[in-house]
Amino acid sequence: MSRCSSQLHPRYFRFFSLSLPIFSKFKTRPSISNTSQKLPLIVVRSSSGSVTAKPSSELRKKRADSNPDDKLRALRELFLKPGIGIDAYIIPSQDAHQSEFIAESYMRRAYISGFTGSAGTAVVTKDKAALWTDGRYFLQAEKQLSSSWILMRAGNLGVPTTSEWLNDILAPGCRVGIDPFLFSSDAAEELKEAISKKNHELVYLFDINLVDEIWKGSRPKPPSSPIRVHDLKYAGVNVGAKLSSLRSELKDAGSSAIVISMLDEIAWLLNLRGNDVPHSPVMYAYLIVEMDGAKLFIDNSKVSLEVMDYLKNAGVELRPYESILSEIESLAMQGAHLWLDTSSVNAAIVNTYKSACERYYGSLGNKSNKNKNISLSYDGTNGQSGGPAEICRTSPIAMAKAVKNQAELEGMCGSHLRDAAALAQFWAWLEEEIQKGMVLTEVEVADKLLEFRSKQAGFIDTSFDTISGSGANGAIIHYKPEPGSCSIVDAKSLFLLDSGAQYIDGTTDVTRTVHFGEPSARQKGCFSRVLQGHIALDQAVFPENTPGFVLDAFARSFLWKIGLDYRHGTGHGVGAALNVHEGPQSISFRFGNMTPLQKGMVVSNEPGYYEDHAFGIRIENLLYVEEVDTPNRFGGIGYLGFEKLTFVPIQAKLVDLSLLSVAEVDWLNTYHSQVWEKVSPLLDGSARQWLWNNTRPLVKP
Amino acid sequence: MSRCSSQLHPRYFRFFSLSLPIFSKFKTRPSISNTSQKLPLIVVRSSSGSVTAKPSSELRKKRADSNPDDKLRALRELFLKPGIGIDAYIIPSQDAHQSEFIAESYMRRAYISGFTGSAGTAVVTKDKAALWTDGRYFLQAEKQLSSSWILMRAGNLGVPTTSEWLNDILAPGCRVGIDPFLFSSDAAEELKEAISKKNHELVYLFDINLVDEIWKGSRPKPPSSPIRVHDLKYAGVNVGAKLSSLRSELKDAGSSAIVISMLDEIAWLLNLRGNDVPHSPVMYAYLIVEMDGAKLFIDNSKVSLEVMDYLKNAGVELRPYESILSEIESLAMQGAHLWLDTSSVNAAIVNTYKSACERYYGSLGNKSNKNKNISLSYDGTNGQSGGPAEICRTSPIAMAKAVKNQAELEGMCGSHLRDAAALAQFWAWLEEEIQKGMVLTEVEVADKLLEFRSKQAGFIDTSFDTISGSGANGAIIHYKPEPGSCSIVDAKSLFLLDSGAQYIDGTTDVTRTVHFGEPSARQKGCFSRVLQGHIALDQAVFPENTPGFVLDAFARSFLWKIGLDYRHGTGHGVGAALNVHEGPQSISFRFGNMTPLQKGMVVSNEPGYYEDHAFGIRIENLLYVEEVDTPNRFGGIGYLGFEKLTFVPIQAKLVDLSLLSVAEVDWLNTYHSQVWEKVSPLLDGSARQWLWNNTRPLVKP
Repeated sequence: MSRCSSQLHPRYFRFFSLSLPIFSKFKTRPSISNTSQKLPLIVVRSSSGSVTAKPSSELRKKRADSNPDDKLRALRELFLKPGIGIDAYIIPSQDAHQSEFIAESYMRRAYISGFTGSAGTAVVTKDKAALWTDGRYFLQAEKQLSSSWILMRAGNLGVPTTSEWLNDILAPGCRVGIDPFLFSSDAAEELKEAISKKNHELVYLFDINLVDEIWKGSRPKPPSSPIRVHDLKYAGVNVGAKLSSLRSELKDAGSSAIVISMLDEIAWLLNLRGNDVPHSPVMYAYLIVEMDGAKLFIDNSKVSLEVMDYLKNAGVELRPYESILSEIESLAMQGAHLWLDTSSVNAAIVNTYKSACERYYGSLGNKSNKNKNISLSYDGTNGQSGGPAEICRTSPIAMAKAVKNQAELEGMCGSHLRDAAALAQFWAWLEEEIQKGMVLTEVEVADKLLEFRSKQAGFIDTSFDTISGSGANGAIIHYKPEPGSCSIVDAKSLFLLDSGAQYIDGTTDVTRTVHFGEPSARQKGCFSRVLQGHIALDQAVFPENTPGFVLDAFARSFLWKIGLDYRHGTGHGVGAALNVHEGPQSISFRFGNMTPLQKGMVVSNEPGYYEDHAFGIRIENLLYVEEVDTPNRFGGIGYLGFEKLTFVPIQAKLVDLSLLSVAEVDWLNTYHSQVWEKVSPLLDGSARQWLWNNTRPLVKP
Repeated sequence: MSRCSSQLHPRYFRFFSLSLPIFSKFKTRPSISNTSQKLPLIVVRSSSGSVTAKPSSELRKKRADSNPDDKLRALRELFLKPGIGIDAYIIPSQDAHQSEFIAESYMRRAYISGFTGSAGTAVVTKDKAALWTDGRYFLQAEKQLSSSWILMRAGNLGVPTTSEWLNDILAPGCRVGIDPFLFSSDAAEELKEAISKKNHELVYLFDINLVDEIWKGSRPKPPSSPIRVHDLKYAGVNVGAKLSSLRSELKDAGSSAIVISMLDEIAWLLNLRGNDVPHSPVMYAYLIVEMDGAKLFIDNSKVSLEVMDYLKNAGVELRPYESILSEIESLAMQGAHLWLDTSSVNAAIVNTYKSACERYYGSLGNKSNKNKNISLSYDGTNGQSGGPAEICRTSPIAMAKAVKNQAELEGMCGSHLRDAAALAQFWAWLEEEIQKGMVLTEVEVADKLLEFRSKQAGFIDTSFDTISGSGANGAIIHYKPEPGSCSIVDAKSLFLLDSGAQYIDGTTDVTRTVHFGEPSARQKGCFSRVLQGHIALDQAVFPENTPGFVLDAFARSFLWKIGLDYRHGTGHGVGAALNVHEGPQSISFRFGNMTPLQKGMVVSNEPGYYEDHAFGIRIENLLYVEEVDTPNRFGGIGYLGFEKLTFVPIQAKLVDLSLLSVAEVDWLNTYHSQVWEKVSPLLDGSARQWLWNNTRPLVKP
């Protein structure tokens, strides 16, 4: 699954500001499910308890809502209340943890605007309401927004940003309200700075979310699924060892505590998994780790006695989710040196800490210490002496999580083989159905794939909404078929299927493009060049310390030769039984990400080509970075390359052998022989026959 | 000729600060000639007057100098003089124009320290003297420095920077003197900031260069060679049109004047050429362009009546070189909005302008206008109303100069063919001499090449010191053979020859690596992988707006596969009958340079491989960027590729055909057939036979 939104310009060479996080957070495909927990579910039993996955057709049902204009009226009434007093309110898509997939309870922007797309920001003033979204969602937003809303087509020429718009329509000196939990500290600071140009004030409403206030009774409850321990045989390193190495990083940085808000970072660090959001096995929580203990802020009802014991043994105390801010305050009062990743930690937390520090020094009458964090970054003084300080740095968990250990890689390998078996069954089934002349929609096909996957051991969930795109729909990079309107998968068109799953031991993400009839020469030509790029990246060898973007051009060069390209990055990081999108590494034409690829990192390799209104092609495997035993080691450093995780046939029918070099044909034949060797033992019957048929060696004429 | 110094770490991924010039100035190979103008010269007559080039053997003679300790003593005495009063003095390698090659008269660091390498900084305090240089020059500096000097091996672990050293050894609050003409404004500001940490003050000594003061009578006179008009048939665009488009850029930026200090920018803009420094056809001068006129600050004796007329017609007035600062002051008094590229313009000019602006506003009693340049950069207000302002931006000339017009490209093509003819004669001669068993040194070989080149029409000079490296010397990337100590070129070793010339119509730079006996399998294997990289870059097609570094990995990937790499960039810009190194584009693994490659730019393609103490390989052609007529134009943009300028055979003996793909062998055969077609008409006799022998098609077994 590619992680770049389609509205970006094809060659977006501007550097990201180096003060921004190196790993640009992606919010490409949150669930837009509006179903409640009462719908019929496919219940799947994994080795560690009951887990759930909903068929796509169910996920796409819409709920009738109250009149959107009533909501706006109610919201605006709140603007005037004592203690609020604002002129505008911004409602982003985010939850308090910068999650890619969020729980229904936090889909405030969808509730207030009626627009259910994954990306969008709503801004309501006393007399106007506007919604920003990107090119993927223009049509959907046009349909879903009432006439009270202005649709802002972000990325189109002349369309202002939210702050530009506010600066334009509000008289100078207004108060713009936000829920500070829903903005990262960096994002809030940027917004504050932008609107200050017209003397507007950014008002943090800590105690009330205005949308929740009017949503009230009909608002789904925050998720409360039980959490579970992620078995050490999959995690590889126990929580004690992880906490101890985190603490030594804290010490090195001169800090005495860290607050972690990214849900996958908490899950990874504590070897816990949850079921609070679709597609990601995480639970809503905050975590504070100090030198001599740790506190997990979580809804108690999610924590079984077994998990409670486990946490106690790890020295982790439980605290109510809502008490995070008061703990942050007391950390300041205790003189902690708090590590804050302001690119992910929300403005409520950062602001609370800063204010508490100011009060601390204010009460001492010692104003000069206010800049303590600056001097700290120079001398790295350790300990808690001399009062509290913020230490603003990238979270150390992201890198530790990205570099997989042996057990995590084994889990990834194992789950990928089971996933490949499910895909072989699925493709065998689909090929047969289409040959029989069955009429199948994109949604039905995706549901059938879920059915095959859910029979595999350890299956938990899909890892994102399946992209099942026939013909022209394949050209929509983040296509999401809807039951009522989607296309038929048939023998006339290319069919692009990008899907993945969460297993107890690993996370998958794979794309194949196939044709059930006769592909055109154009389609074969484009497919072959995408394949050549896929092979070039797969085969790349590179020195240690190479950032992923250096390799991006390898995947494009064959398309470039005939004037073609694709508008998304070539690879993203993937978690081990965690988020399907993770940082900090990437392989992208956006050059801001300097994170070197390191041994043990998992990345996708997914070049594509998309011909608008005609067809889409993408070939995606997951890879992990491995040392290569090169005959030389110039510079005294190691050289790295990739090993494949994904073992699913690439359709030979689409390959124009005359375009491929002998070495490229060899690559394909070697790959297919590995696919047969590794996956056939898991199959029988027609699926096994299908795998055999689709892994035969090709001969260049 | 590669432009990256060898002391850099192989994978130097740290971003250059974006506040620094995008085009990092290189000082890799200034002449270190200490000869006087009285030595015997090879006098070559070009179509526009008498020009000179010295044989390498002459350039390398050294002059006995007075005792270095006497110089230090004299220098320190000056520290105490009234109006000076400093505790330390920094003597950089630079001239006042950030030139790569500088005139002898300005080689102050070499004079004071005795160290004649191209790169180095001397710092003298009241009781210490230290010299910083990089890995290329450690041995040379050890030999040349007296015991009064501390050698600072820059880049080695634990070696401080100049400012770190000063901060360490000086008691806080000292005065550190510099000649502000010899530092770019950015460099001086950086230095000032660094030493202010220990409360040291950076003192600009405007009126006296302390080294010149003690150098006195023995100091060579500043160069005074006549300047000439660069013929319109080579320049392509007349000075009127160039000035007019510059003025419209000034207007767009809200500025009313610009000061240009880079010598190649002045030469390009005015279609003038000079002979003040070795290797670059430029003259020492400053240029100020205003909306209604321009002033060239130059030693009058260089300007013939003909050139004077030419300049008058172009609206360019002459001013003495030394009067630049008083003109800068008067610009401020006239309220000019002065465009300053602080990465290249020296601190003397920038500081003079800023002080004059302050005085201007001070005399008005209007202090608040002091930050005018900041507001200007927002609203881009035009005109001179409201008093002077600095507009700090990258020089607009660099990009205009880099994108060659048709006439410039024709001149480059023509001069490259004549250069290729000289090289064919040279290689034919050398092969024959070695077969005859003649003993030839690296210096003799380089001198013979100069002799062949100097017979070609329009020859003016070498474009840099020839790198003539046999065996292990080939592994020294910036090797410079010395007459007394250099090696023999024979049939036992690889021989790397990197050389270039200045012609009336173009500039060349070409590297070939050959073996006159039997190369080893190792040498062939490495050569073939370097060649594969060379071919991959040559054949690259890429979308508009692609910066060069995106293509750098293409040239390395074949070496990487076996764990090899090279420690320099793959390509640099080249001027048209101008500097052999120019910006702003480059093709490098250092990713700070975001300048897109554009149609008409000239770049080198020079991957290499260097095995320490054994051999060096480099294959270098010059290329120009051209549109490619791709069958598609995805994204509605153009796709670009390269056309070759260099047509010199690549030695077939060194190619291991089993490593090359069919397409790569085809590339080589096509190239060689073009070489024969284009160059053979310029040859006869043994050189023509040599070209025939060396352009025969190869067949992959």
